[in-house]
Amino acid sequence: MSSHARAGNGRNSAGLHLDLDRIVAELRRSRQRAGQDCDSGACEMPSREALRSIVEGLFAALFPTHLGMPELSGEGIDYFVGHTLDATLRALHQQVRRELQFSGPCASVDERAAQIAREFAARLPNVHALLESDIHAAYQGDPAAKSIQEVRLCYPGITAMTHHRLAHELYLLQAPLLARLIAELAHSATGIDIHPGAQIGESFFIDHGTGVVIGETAIIGRRVRVYQAVTLGAKSFPVGPGGELVKGIPRHPIVEDDVVIYAGATILGRVTIGRGSIIGGNVWLTRSVPAGSNVTQMQARSEVFDAGAGI
Amino acid sequence: MSSHARAGNGRNSAGLHLDLDRIVAELRRSRQRAGQDCDSGACEMPSREALRSIVEGLFAALFPTHLGMPELSGEGIDYFVGHTLDATLRALHQQVRRELQFSGPCASVDERAAQIAREFAARLPNVHALLESDIHAAYQGDPAAKSIQEVRLCYPGITAMTHHRLAHELYLLQAPLLARLIAELAHSATGIDIHPGAQIGESFFIDHGTGVVIGETAIIGRRVRVYQAVTLGAKSFPVGPGGELVKGIPRHPIVEDDVVIYAGATILGRVTIGRGSIIGGNVWLTRSVPAGSNVTQMQARSEVFDAGAGI
Amino acid sequence: MSSHARAGNGRNSAGLHLDLDRIVAELRRSRQRAGQDCDSGACEMPSREALRSIVEGLFAALFPTHLGMPELSGEGIDYFVGHTLDATLRALHQQVRRELQFSGPCASVDERAAQIAREFAARLPNVHALLESDIHAAYQGDPAAKSIQEVRLCYPGITAMTHHRLAHELYLLQAPLLARLIAELAHSATGIDIHPGAQIGESFFIDHGTGVVIGETAIIGRRVRVYQAVTLGAKSFPVGPGGELVKGIPRHPIVEDDVVIYAGATILGRVTIGRGSIIGGNVWLTRSVPAGSNVTQMQARSEVFDAGAGI
Amino acid sequence: MSSHARAGNGRNSAGLHLDLDRIVAELRRSRQRAGQDCDSGACEMPSREALRSIVEGLFAALFPTHLGMPELSGEGIDYFVGHTLDATLRALHQQVRRELQFSGPCASVDERAAQIAREFAARLPNVHALLESDIHAAYQGDPAAKSIQEVRLCYPGITAMTHHRLAHELYLLQAPLLARLIAELAHSATGIDIHPGAQIGESFFIDHGTGVVIGETAIIGRRVRVYQAVTLGAKSFPVGPGGELVKGIPRHPIVEDDVVIYAGATILGRVTIGRGSIIGGNVWLTRSVPAGSNVTQMQARSEVFDAGAGI
Amino acid sequence: MSSHARAGNGRNSAGLHLDLDRIVAELRRSRQRAGQDCDSGACEMPSREALRSIVEGLFAALFPTHLGMPELSGEGIDYFVGHTLDATLRALHQQVRRELQFSGPCASVDERAAQIAREFAARLPNVHALLESDIHAAYQGDPAAKSIQEVRLCYPGITAMTHHRLAHELYLLQAPLLARLIAELAHSATGIDIHPGAQIGESFFIDHGTGVVIGETAIIGRRVRVYQAVTLGAKSFPVGPGGELVKGIPRHPIVEDDVVIYAGATILGRVTIGRGSIIGGNVWLTRSVPAGSNVTQMQARSEVFDAGAGI
Amino acid sequence: MSSHARAGNGRNSAGLHLDLDRIVAELRRSRQRAGQDCDSGACEMPSREALRSIVEGLFAALFPTHLGMPELSGEGIDYFVGHTLDATLRALHQQVRRELQFSGPCASVDERAAQIAREFAARLPNVHALLESDIHAAYQGDPAAKSIQEVRLCYPGITAMTHHRLAHELYLLQAPLLARLIAELAHSATGIDIHPGAQIGESFFIDHGTGVVIGETAIIGRRVRVYQAVTLGAKSFPVGPGGELVKGIPRHPIVEDDVVIYAGATILGRVTIGRGSIIGGNVWLTRSVPAGSNVTQMQARSEVFDAGAGI
Repeated sequence: MSSHARAGNGRNSAGLHLDLDRIVAELRRSRQRAGQDCDSGACEMPSREALRSIVEGLFAALFPTHLGMPELSGEGIDYFVGHTLDATLRALHQQVRRELQFSGPCASVDERAAQIAREFAARLPNVHALLESDIHAAYQGDPAAKSIQEVRLCYPGITAMTHHRLAHELYLLQAPLLARLIAELAHSATGIDIHPGAQIGESFFIDHGTGVVIGETAIIGRRVRVYQAVTLGAKSFPVGPGGELVKGIPRHPIVEDDVVIYAGATILGRVTIGRGSIIGGNVWLTRSVPAGSNVTQMQARSEVFDAGAGI
Repeated sequence: MSSHARAGNGRNSAGLHLDLDRIVAELRRSRQRAGQDCDSGACEMPSREALRSIVEGLFAALFPTHLGMPELSGEGIDYFVGHTLDATLRALHQQVRRELQFSGPCASVDERAAQIAREFAARLPNVHALLESDIHAAYQGDPAAKSIQEVRLCYPGITAMTHHRLAHELYLLQAPLLARLIAELAHSATGIDIHPGAQIGESFFIDHGTGVVIGETAIIGRRVRVYQAVTLGAKSFPVGPGGELVKGIPRHPIVEDDVVIYAGATILGRVTIGRGSIIGGNVWLTRSVPAGSNVTQMQARSEVFDAGAGI
Repeated sequence: MSSHARAGNGRNSAGLHLDLDRIVAELRRSRQRAGQDCDSGACEMPSREALRSIVEGLFAALFPTHLGMPELSGEGIDYFVGHTLDATLRALHQQVRRELQFSGPCASVDERAAQIAREFAARLPNVHALLESDIHAAYQGDPAAKSIQEVRLCYPGITAMTHHRLAHELYLLQAPLLARLIAELAHSATGIDIHPGAQIGESFFIDHGTGVVIGETAIIGRRVRVYQAVTLGAKSFPVGPGGELVKGIPRHPIVEDDVVIYAGATILGRVTIGRGSIIGGNVWLTRSVPAGSNVTQMQARSEVFDAGAGI
Repeated sequence: MSSHARAGNGRNSAGLHLDLDRIVAELRRSRQRAGQDCDSGACEMPSREALRSIVEGLFAALFPTHLGMPELSGEGIDYFVGHTLDATLRALHQQVRRELQFSGPCASVDERAAQIAREFAARLPNVHALLESDIHAAYQGDPAAKSIQEVRLCYPGITAMTHHRLAHELYLLQAPLLARLIAELAHSATGIDIHPGAQIGESFFIDHGTGVVIGETAIIGRRVRVYQAVTLGAKSFPVGPGGELVKGIPRHPIVEDDVVIYAGATILGRVTIGRGSIIGGNVWLTRSVPAGSNVTQMQARSEVFDAGAGI
Repeated sequence: MSSHARAGNGRNSAGLHLDLDRIVAELRRSRQRAGQDCDSGACEMPSREALRSIVEGLFAALFPTHLGMPELSGEGIDYFVGHTLDATLRALHQQVRRELQFSGPCASVDERAAQIAREFAARLPNVHALLESDIHAAYQGDPAAKSIQEVRLCYPGITAMTHHRLAHELYLLQAPLLARLIAELAHSATGIDIHPGAQIGESFFIDHGTGVVIGETAIIGRRVRVYQAVTLGAKSFPVGPGGELVKGIPRHPIVEDDVVIYAGATILGRVTIGRGSIIGGNVWLTRSVPAGSNVTQMQARSEVFDAGAGI
Repeated sequence: MSSHARAGNGRNSAGLHLDLDRIVAELRRSRQRAGQDCDSGACEMPSREALRSIVEGLFAALFPTHLGMPELSGEGIDYFVGHTLDATLRALHQQVRRELQFSGPCASVDERAAQIAREFAARLPNVHALLESDIHAAYQGDPAAKSIQEVRLCYPGITAMTHHRLAHELYLLQAPLLARLIAELAHSATGIDIHPGAQIGESFFIDHGTGVVIGETAIIGRRVRVYQAVTLGAKSFPVGPGGELVKGIPRHPIVEDDVVIYAGATILGRVTIGRGSIIGGNVWLTRSVPAGSNVTQMQARSEVFDAGAGI
């Protein structure tokens, strides 16, 4: 495109005069400095919007009458589930291909992507059974729950765990970027931030949930209950000889079966919370506790003044 | 469908070979074990998407120029409001019918659903007036608020309260599942989790709001102000003779008129915060305080070290 | 419309009988009492939906292969960026006009809106460069980050900062209502609430992020790192002679270069956190600390009981 | 709505001043004069848009890889077909109910509508087989047809016949209004106007098709071929004693097997075109012809003048 | 945009290498040669898609239960009509502005456009009454019509006349381009091509309709009936001194009250068909006929040969 | 899927009892008999919907301010055109791949498809220039045309020719199925049926157009004008030794430069209409005429009877 031919385009008599050519060129240079554009024209990024649709499809296939088509009944359910899986898993296959393209030669990408999609599909019934255990745990653990349908339809903890159990399978199948995209969809929708690497046993219940953070290497047993603003985090980040963070080492807590962790508690580092323990609200914990512990914050005393005093 | 006729379908020369038949059958069995599918083919689940549209319609009818059609003016506003209400309330009527189908014989469902929709409609002007009191409270209570329009258009506390005041009416009209669905839409959009059962007086202001939790049996007076991460929760869950949670008993705080609760404060149990009290940031409170109290956390001392020390 | 002509409309043989006329009239009166409708028919409100599209357009123009069209490559990228900017900035121009209409005579609105849109456009390359610095900070600061693409595609801290850096430019260009609408889109999507007035230097990293609150007059240096639930807030709100809040005075912290603030820390008031300081988790801080400080909460002791004890 | 309360609404300071109240009232009176609004509030009109979706669903179920999802393969096809039928036939059921409401007491409407939907569903395989015979006839009869796929994907004669064979079943099942709506969708898309009452045998081919008209009581045999602008119409309309048209009597041609009718031919009245006859282009025919006839227009001579003469 | 900066963009490693820059430049030059782009940047073209929506809105407002929302009843109809008119007429106002911009100074465009929109709105009740007369004419004139609802919902002649009666008002109000856009929407949907200038009296019925052409200066009386492929056209086009066509002179037929014109008849030039005449199928007529005439084609004899002969 | 596991699915207590399993199986068998499903799972059909979008994209790129974005101006046009071409031609590339898959080994499909897309792109400027010649011909040839914009925006002859000139290039590039799909989109929208094989010179004008048919091997010169219902067809279809139609031989008319063909004229067979000839309305012509001919139908006399006589 010669600059002459474009000369007249810089003026916009409607008055905006955005000077698009200059801004477009500056943005291109800024992208190039950041290495943002793909070096090789053949690579395509995974698409957040595609992942969003895929997750919706998987939710619908897992809970067809609740989150798919509420009007479904009898003879139509299996056709809906089968068709939804077919379309959704094909779409997932495409996104897996895109993720794999970043890390290896093109030749085997197609077949590996197909393998991942197939393997993921085969694990869905197990994921469904785990989720039903979570749903029952929520119904039994929340005095405000009116019916099992209410839990399935709208509990944010269930929304988060459905994302997580799907994302975790992708993480295990070596598609960590797609897994993370799914985890962040849950984070955005619920305020619950579970890294897809976290291992979580059956019948897990998160109540309210906003502000919960569960780190990549956390391991959580069965029948664990967690409330809003609980953090299972890392205490410190080991640094390599070159000064860069060392990635991938176990750095988050292990929580054994039947533990309850109340709102706002913070547990940091590779510590173990023994089976059946109860961790009270706002507790700050950076060491292991044995099975059957009951940890509470020795509270700072609240002081009561007359009204009118400043805070 | 004979298994013979389907024999050839298991292969997919495009390479995916998902083995759909097996996965569909396993998911069906998992649903059946969980009692997920409706026993009687006649029942339809309420639809989250339908509720989302209904809530958008109600927001538009309540704030037509702000959240409906910004281009509206003069002679067109009432037609917009009337048509939006007509379409939205008919849609609500359908969803109420679905909720009622779970709990009773079909015969009276239609008429009861109509009654609920009508009664709900009749309360909308009152809901609107309450919301305008909330909006004025926010404008007066936030030094960052530039105009009343800014508050109406984008304050998350107002978004949450608009959902809540609508959901609360449905809760009172015995449609608790729809009420909860609406509450969770607010929770997802704002990080503010108010159970639809909570009773909240006029001129209520939530600033920032992320992480706020207000329980089902909480009672909040007029002109109360609350900041992010405040919890008005239950302290313990009474268990019945069979070991199951007892549902429905008063277990959340009563907050009287003109109370201010600063960020991160946690108030648990059926305690009463007396009129005009101020509860400081991060306070943990499990007992009643009289009117005019000023409660602050006696702070743990912060220690200051030289830079370079580990955390 | 005469009441006679409408007489027959009050009945709806389908059984709903909503009595629309009465509800519409009551809502109108409630709007009028609240001054909700625009006095002058000529004003149009900015549209939240329009802002949402504009923000999507800007994200796509800044990160075309990541958040625009993942299929883009080589020769098509600049055309995509140029067209997306053209369409998006025209739409922004319209919304700026709407905001300006509230505050001045119509005559100059068009030209001022065009100036703002042009000036905003010219700053986009700089915004892009700042965001790339944030992205690199996140990649380097998070041991769970697998690739720079993962950070760009789905880190909520980056989502929040992209909104903020765009909103901040509009705030500086005197379009505070649009700026706030954009900030609240980020707040809803990420749980991170940054007022568009806050000044934030390059290479800023927010990890997890849910519950973070950063106030209007906060000033943050370069290479600062912040974790979930951190508050940089105001301590008290000066009241004017008439009892109303005084708006616009500096009331939030100054955080100097290279500071790290761990999860849950609360810093209130116009205090200064000296360069290179580390503020520990859950610290409550209302005074300045010198450069190189390491502040930790002197923790309340956690008490451990036998299992079986009540919380 | 009192006229007082609305008084201010007639002015629109943006300058349009549409005087909506007056126009709305006049339109209502005009509708009432025409009896346009349903007398009983319980009736709902069938929806053109719903029919359009239903027809798309049926096309997709009949030709899943051609007109449904081109990406379908192997194991997924039956799930797609089953789900599409399930959703489409439920939607059809609703529209049938609406049609039946006009003509009888509500009590039996539900069951009759279900019967019609079931019976219609059961005939679909037969409809499919007939359409495949039409498709083969087109491929064999058109020298421009490159492949059978081309015929299936885009021949307007096939589009028209797919509509017709579906509409005809609804006509036979006593849902003439839905049948007609479907016929008019075909008419609009192809310019081919076949009344759903017309009986048409297998392997029917319409080439080009624009302007073809086939009347309600026409009977067409097997392997008939018809070109654009052919009319099989009525010659005259018998009038009853009161002067009104007598409806429902046979008044359109019978066309026996293996007849070819070339473009622009017009055949009117209850005449019979004997098996194997050929009717030439532009022929005007109002009497029966025996089997094996070859009818051509004895053409008016064309006159050739020098160029330059006026037409 | 410098050509250097773009140099690398011409290669697309995905293999398409479209050479976009060159094609874009050539298309720009071709547009410039044709004068396609607006000289002055301030002009915006009317939008076909906007017109399509406007026409849908007008159809819905005229026939709310048939073509608007089939579920409407009683108390909701007027609100629907009022709101639909409000939104639709505002959109029309914008399009009228665009048309007017071509022909005059900007100053008065706004006000003239508003006047046109207002005047158009005021004529809608009259348009509705005329259309109801057309609907009754169709019901009475077609032995295949089963109900008045069928006619309203799907007769293409009614579709065409609804477009025409709306387009004609815009034509009279000096918005001929919008009028023509609407006429072509009808032409595309029905195959009926009526120029918006044509004057057509009440109770006009077009049956089947494909191929009907009615010219700009045609005048048609009351209770006229016309069948498919009828042309009311111009016979010759007078040429001005410079060789260009003379536009705007009367050149199409006048058809008086109660005339019937059967399928395929062609009537050309400014001739008059006297009241009550009947024009037979395929008649070619270029002269006036007195009232009460019955014109038929003296038919060319059809010849019948044995089967087997070629055509 | 075992038949046992599905046993319960045949009943639908909501009353529809569609017996989906049986219908799905019967449809599958009917598809198999017709060879409808692709033998090899790897093939995907071209998609009609995709073609529709592609055609819209090409129209927008050719006429950006008329059929793309009416709001475009100055500096934004080229970005719009470039981006639209980029996205549209990539989509076309995919559809070309699908067409090629039918006819050859997969290996070279990708590269050939890319070549076709590139070559097609390179011809677009020439197509644009031809279309502008058609637009000028229409403006000059129609006394009802008010402006060149009116012609560009809504003349059906231009719509048809834009489709044709694009489809013709694909036909020449050996993508006849895509070409035909595009031709049928035009046919459906305009009633004008031009086979993509037809060769048509510059400045071609079709007025009204409904019912026009132009065959695959027709050759039309420059500055030709054609009216509605004109057929340029084949006279007879040669049959091969096996009784099947011989495809691909020249069988449609050659029309030389500057010919005018009035409405309803039918010209059949490989005849030549000499340069500058005028063919009158309704003429039926199966022989060549020399340059400068003026052919009119020697009309059958119309007979005029008294009113009241039957037709």
